[in-house]
Amino acid sequence: MSQEEKRTEIGEIGEFGLIDRIAESFKTVNTSTLIGIGDDAAVIDAGEHVKLVSTDMLVEGVHFDLSYMPLEHLGYKAVAVNVSDIAAMNGIPKQITIGLGLSNRFSVEAVESFYRGVKFACEDYAVDLIGGDTTSSPRGLIVSVTVIGEAAKEKVTYRKNAEVNDIICVTGDFGGALMGLQVLEREKEVFKVNPDMQPDISEYEYLVKRQLKPAARMDVIYELADAGVIPTSMIDVSDGLASELFHIAKQSDVGITIYEDKLPFDELTYRTAVEFNLDPVTCALNGGEDYELLFTISQSDFDKIKNLPDVTTIGFVDKKESGHKLITKTGKTVPLTAQGWKHF
Amino acid sequence: MSQEEKRTEIGEIGEFGLIDRIAESFKTVNTSTLIGIGDDAAVIDAGEHVKLVSTDMLVEGVHFDLSYMPLEHLGYKAVAVNVSDIAAMNGIPKQITIGLGLSNRFSVEAVESFYRGVKFACEDYAVDLIGGDTTSSPRGLIVSVTVIGEAAKEKVTYRKNAEVNDIICVTGDFGGALMGLQVLEREKEVFKVNPDMQPDISEYEYLVKRQLKPAARMDVIYELADAGVIPTSMIDVSDGLASELFHIAKQSDVGITIYEDKLPFDELTYRTAVEFNLDPVTCALNGGEDYELLFTISQSDFDKIKNLPDVTTIGFVDKKESGHKLITKTGKTVPLTAQGWKHF
Repeated sequence: MSQEEKRTEIGEIGEFGLIDRIAESFKTVNTSTLIGIGDDAAVIDAGEHVKLVSTDMLVEGVHFDLSYMPLEHLGYKAVAVNVSDIAAMNGIPKQITIGLGLSNRFSVEAVESFYRGVKFACEDYAVDLIGGDTTSSPRGLIVSVTVIGEAAKEKVTYRKNAEVNDIICVTGDFGGALMGLQVLEREKEVFKVNPDMQPDISEYEYLVKRQLKPAARMDVIYELADAGVIPTSMIDVSDGLASELFHIAKQSDVGITIYEDKLPFDELTYRTAVEFNLDPVTCALNGGEDYELLFTISQSDFDKIKNLPDVTTIGFVDKKESGHKLITKTGKTVPLTAQGWKHF
Repeated sequence: MSQEEKRTEIGEIGEFGLIDRIAESFKTVNTSTLIGIGDDAAVIDAGEHVKLVSTDMLVEGVHFDLSYMPLEHLGYKAVAVNVSDIAAMNGIPKQITIGLGLSNRFSVEAVESFYRGVKFACEDYAVDLIGGDTTSSPRGLIVSVTVIGEAAKEKVTYRKNAEVNDIICVTGDFGGALMGLQVLEREKEVFKVNPDMQPDISEYEYLVKRQLKPAARMDVIYELADAGVIPTSMIDVSDGLASELFHIAKQSDVGITIYEDKLPFDELTYRTAVEFNLDPVTCALNGGEDYELLFTISQSDFDKIKNLPDVTTIGFVDKKESGHKLITKTGKTVPLTAQGWKHF
């Protein structure tokens, strides 16, 4: 290695910068590759319909902490977060493969416990485990899941087709998974100081569940289909609502306006944020791992979704020149900022 | 955790035992899932043809050693070994996704070097990189690749359909990748003792290349198609020839007879095995990572393959009761034993 050789830290350009750099140098050559890198899932031609493919890697010490994440929950979550990527394409998940790297600290029973969770998720989402790879790792647990889904060609929703004046919708509520993580981290610290103390997290049950056992919103995908609505754009909220809004805006070449008073909060999330001296709005906008859906619809479709119980309209798509704005409860317009989840 | 809770080490039941245990508890529910766990790739219905899906995880310190494996080669190999799984189903690889876990010791330039190798392999095998996940890892490098291929339904080859009297064929030669590894490990030891010494591995070039930059035998898949031959069974040789023969035998419920004097050797592999005081036949039978193809054909197809330059017939399929046998050069019959690659 020459001493002048350049070394750029990944943190300097970030995960998305790195992906952009890599994606630039790759061209696709197969006609069956309809959409490659850049959305929640790739799209592959399969005759009458398309196959959707997405992959996620979860690494111990980065994405999960086994001191409070039971293996069964981890197995469930590994499937659910991948299913969520298929949901974000308006598709139906069908198959998964799982790669598992295990240090010798894991027993057969531990692996079985992980796969029990995988199985529950497979049952919940009607997904088939079709293959994988199990290998040893020098340290820790690594999970890599690839999910394959299906959709009719004309129903696939991308990040790039949001139009000016579209309505911005979200499912569920935000910030809960982040507050669940805060609670679990606090209990871990308490436990370290006094191992005899039994953690009481019962009053935070909803938040802890949001963190440990997130649900992919396939229910809403089916509801939208029943209502006859195809969103103009869609993404799942894994990194934080603001960050995902920015993805939609960037790829659709539009601006975004959302209203603080329309952001859906779970009351416990709100109270717990305050308890932790955190701003609930910041938590909702920048907390990751809620795995809700963010989508845009034409105004003409508003009547079809307005009565869906778990869908909230939070703003509208604007011209690119208008930028990205949050209208506060007091009517002030402030720039929307995203932090997202930084693993690097 | 109750103290009586059972702890079974994964080594006690092995990787295959573990997979069997997990696979047992999963049933498939989607009609598009034609074949799940248990072959080189899963088979998914896609209208006129089928999609083939396979996944592999490579972990630093287990599957590769970056002290002699350049990142560019690793990128190439990660794709090639997955393509090999599609070849083993008699399919054509089309798309790949890559999950990458990186510790902070890796720079942007290092990642780009890895992806340069990925790109070379994508070009060699006409495969499109369609997605992935890049994340940090507390230690080392983890690569998880999922490949998607295509095949006409009637052309897919499984491990389970070898018939009594079929001819057993292999591509290329065996033991080279193992000997390449031995050479590299020896040079590493020399380097540890005297870092100023320049390793000279030029005379072992073929072996080192077999280890660092293995090729998937797509060339033979195209030749078989041109010759109008569909193997009755096929598998790629990742764990060792004997181990793969056993997979075919077990899943096809047959016995295996192979001839020592028909095993294809590269002369350098043979000489190097002797230099390392290793039995060349054992190296050929049990050395892993050659990524050649092992397949069986009907006797009626023999004329069609006999002139293929890189295909060798090494034996025949027998009744299950006959067991698994090696006929030595001196005409003795000895039981065939498999060690395979044990990562646990």
